[in-house]
Amino acid sequence: MSFWRNAALASQPTPGEDSSMANERRPTTVMAGGGEYDRNAKVQSEAASLAIRLLRRAASEAALPSGDGPIVAVDYGSATGRNSLAPLNVAIETLRMRDPRPILVIHEDQPDNDYRSLFDTIYNAPESYTRQHQGVFGCAIGRSFYDPVAPPASVCLGWSSAAAHWLSGAPPRPSDHLWAPTVRFATGPAVREAARRDWHQFLSRRADELRSGGRMVVLLATVDDEGVAGGEHVLDGLNRVLQRQVASGAICGHEYENLVVPMFFRSREDLEAPFAGSDLGDRLTLLEHCRGIVPDPLWNAFVASGEVNAFAASFTAWVRAFTAPCLLASLDAQRSPEDRRAVADAIYGELETDVQNAPAEVRCAWRIATLLIGKQ
Amino acid sequence: MSFWRNAALASQPTPGEDSSMANERRPTTVMAGGGEYDRNAKVQSEAASLAIRLLRRAASEAALPSGDGPIVAVDYGSATGRNSLAPLNVAIETLRMRDPRPILVIHEDQPDNDYRSLFDTIYNAPESYTRQHQGVFGCAIGRSFYDPVAPPASVCLGWSSAAAHWLSGAPPRPSDHLWAPTVRFATGPAVREAARRDWHQFLSRRADELRSGGRMVVLLATVDDEGVAGGEHVLDGLNRVLQRQVASGAICGHEYENLVVPMFFRSREDLEAPFAGSDLGDRLTLLEHCRGIVPDPLWNAFVASGEVNAFAASFTAWVRAFTAPCLLASLDAQRSPEDRRAVADAIYGELETDVQNAPAEVRCAWRIATLLIGKQ
Repeated sequence: MSFWRNAALASQPTPGEDSSMANERRPTTVMAGGGEYDRNAKVQSEAASLAIRLLRRAASEAALPSGDGPIVAVDYGSATGRNSLAPLNVAIETLRMRDPRPILVIHEDQPDNDYRSLFDTIYNAPESYTRQHQGVFGCAIGRSFYDPVAPPASVCLGWSSAAAHWLSGAPPRPSDHLWAPTVRFATGPAVREAARRDWHQFLSRRADELRSGGRMVVLLATVDDEGVAGGEHVLDGLNRVLQRQVASGAICGHEYENLVVPMFFRSREDLEAPFAGSDLGDRLTLLEHCRGIVPDPLWNAFVASGEVNAFAASFTAWVRAFTAPCLLASLDAQRSPEDRRAVADAIYGELETDVQNAPAEVRCAWRIATLLIGKQ
Repeated sequence: MSFWRNAALASQPTPGEDSSMANERRPTTVMAGGGEYDRNAKVQSEAASLAIRLLRRAASEAALPSGDGPIVAVDYGSATGRNSLAPLNVAIETLRMRDPRPILVIHEDQPDNDYRSLFDTIYNAPESYTRQHQGVFGCAIGRSFYDPVAPPASVCLGWSSAAAHWLSGAPPRPSDHLWAPTVRFATGPAVREAARRDWHQFLSRRADELRSGGRMVVLLATVDDEGVAGGEHVLDGLNRVLQRQVASGAICGHEYENLVVPMFFRSREDLEAPFAGSDLGDRLTLLEHCRGIVPDPLWNAFVASGEVNAFAASFTAWVRAFTAPCLLASLDAQRSPEDRRAVADAIYGELETDVQNAPAEVRCAWRIATLLIGKQ
């Protein structure tokens, strides 16, 4: 689950936008499925490539199981899996140089994730680890990574790319915006507290699941030492469209107020704090913490092509993929599925037009943190 | 996946009946999802209860892993999982008396299975093993059980209920019927050969996956020594409805001819033959083979209530749950999803009326085989 790792065609409703989700009165961190993922893979490969060196180190250092069981690797927040393939192939190659035993890869995501696409990808994509290597098997766990997802001390190697900045619940949002992803937003300090608790919970669950000497690599969005995330403005346009929709009566004020995108970009200090704490500090070690800026591949493609309509379409598709489930869940329960879809189409259509008129406003320069974590 | 273990409300299209499946020109062994399973659990609990004694023996005898990894149990053909819970709880209780280590339960089914329902069941149902026991974890593998689904020598305990009579491909069908589930049907001898190859393949995959000393219990429909399955007439009514639909022009002749329900009920001899063969006989031992007849719970409920309309509805729902994906896949690709659904509604509606008029014709007395298998 990730706003980098999924994107939908702008005008196509996605499997994540179904009516059953729309009836749930809570934010959702399920991403779009159905193959849209495959059609927009630039952003995520940019981000994940930063973490490959750390992943290779993790796979070369991780303590392997005693006995005759398989080596277990977990992909936390896999979405439909396509962009897990390249990093997993690196990890598997590295593990294979050390040990001939079978490897079991567990893909973890929300229960509502599109597992049909995931299984199709991991068994049928030519670049999948099941095609690239012998004796490697894939399975899925549909449960929040804030819950236990694997047996204690069973995981040799963990990987989580662009997922852990999604929060476990609905954080307080400003009255005039859809989210508060940094402390510079009105409710940011309160969301920061929720994000600190979630990060501690995420690490605590992984400390349970990693075997002694196991390794984990976590890539997620962060803020730099000035408090800048480089993408905190990315929902400004959607927010303006929604405010106009309220003003015109197309949606109700409380529907706007229901909508919250549950993400927060933690600082270096917040990311590192649990490793110095008395409980987790005795179980997990932060071995490396790399920080950088991801180039904006959508913007770079626009610069190369000069095609503003294509840029607006790709940007809108990307935003739709991670916000549409939240949007649909915020609409009144009595709206029909067709009505919900029409509302969403109108909103994202208007956003696309706005981006065509002012493309530079949505250019991003995401700050990324990659952590290599060891289990003691 | 099973015709016992799933049932849909008669008039409701099911998740298995979506348009993407309808575009595939092949039979499907995916069952209905979305919770219909939970609403019709009598038939399957009747069948599975026959196997509980063997499952308890299997769990008490299975060799456990060396080293520190979890104990792995696999549920082959889990569908949405609800009716795996009772047998898995028995297996886990038995394993737990022997060993305190964590247990990982892997649910296997087709990639198109409804994994959202599966994960909801295994994590949230009060009777789920994850709620009933500490240290038990569930995951899913979306791949045919005629393929490898788990690492070699990783499985302590296998369970497969009412799934292995589904074939891997489309068998030849008689020109005037939807299936040939025994040799008494016109193309039955050819289907029997396909079923023999599939059974060998199923056992061969499991022989790879079971650890030395591991155990597996397989429950499936069979024919008795007179060649009677006790349910081979169960699609006669649907077949008659479809033939009338062709005659009236509601569906085309080739759509009728495309439809095949890929099942076969093997004899005692065919089930036992691989264990005497040179390749599998050296790897697997047939420890017990129990055979019996399952009472028809739908019929028994009808006898108790006298309500023929309820009986016709429950029977039709049950048939629809395992035949509708095949039916939809047989319809012309250019039909719209709405048209497909209308065709299916008309067909099953007509079937329900026929059953109301002649309920005794669809009473079943299924012959069931349960095999306890050991890996050498």
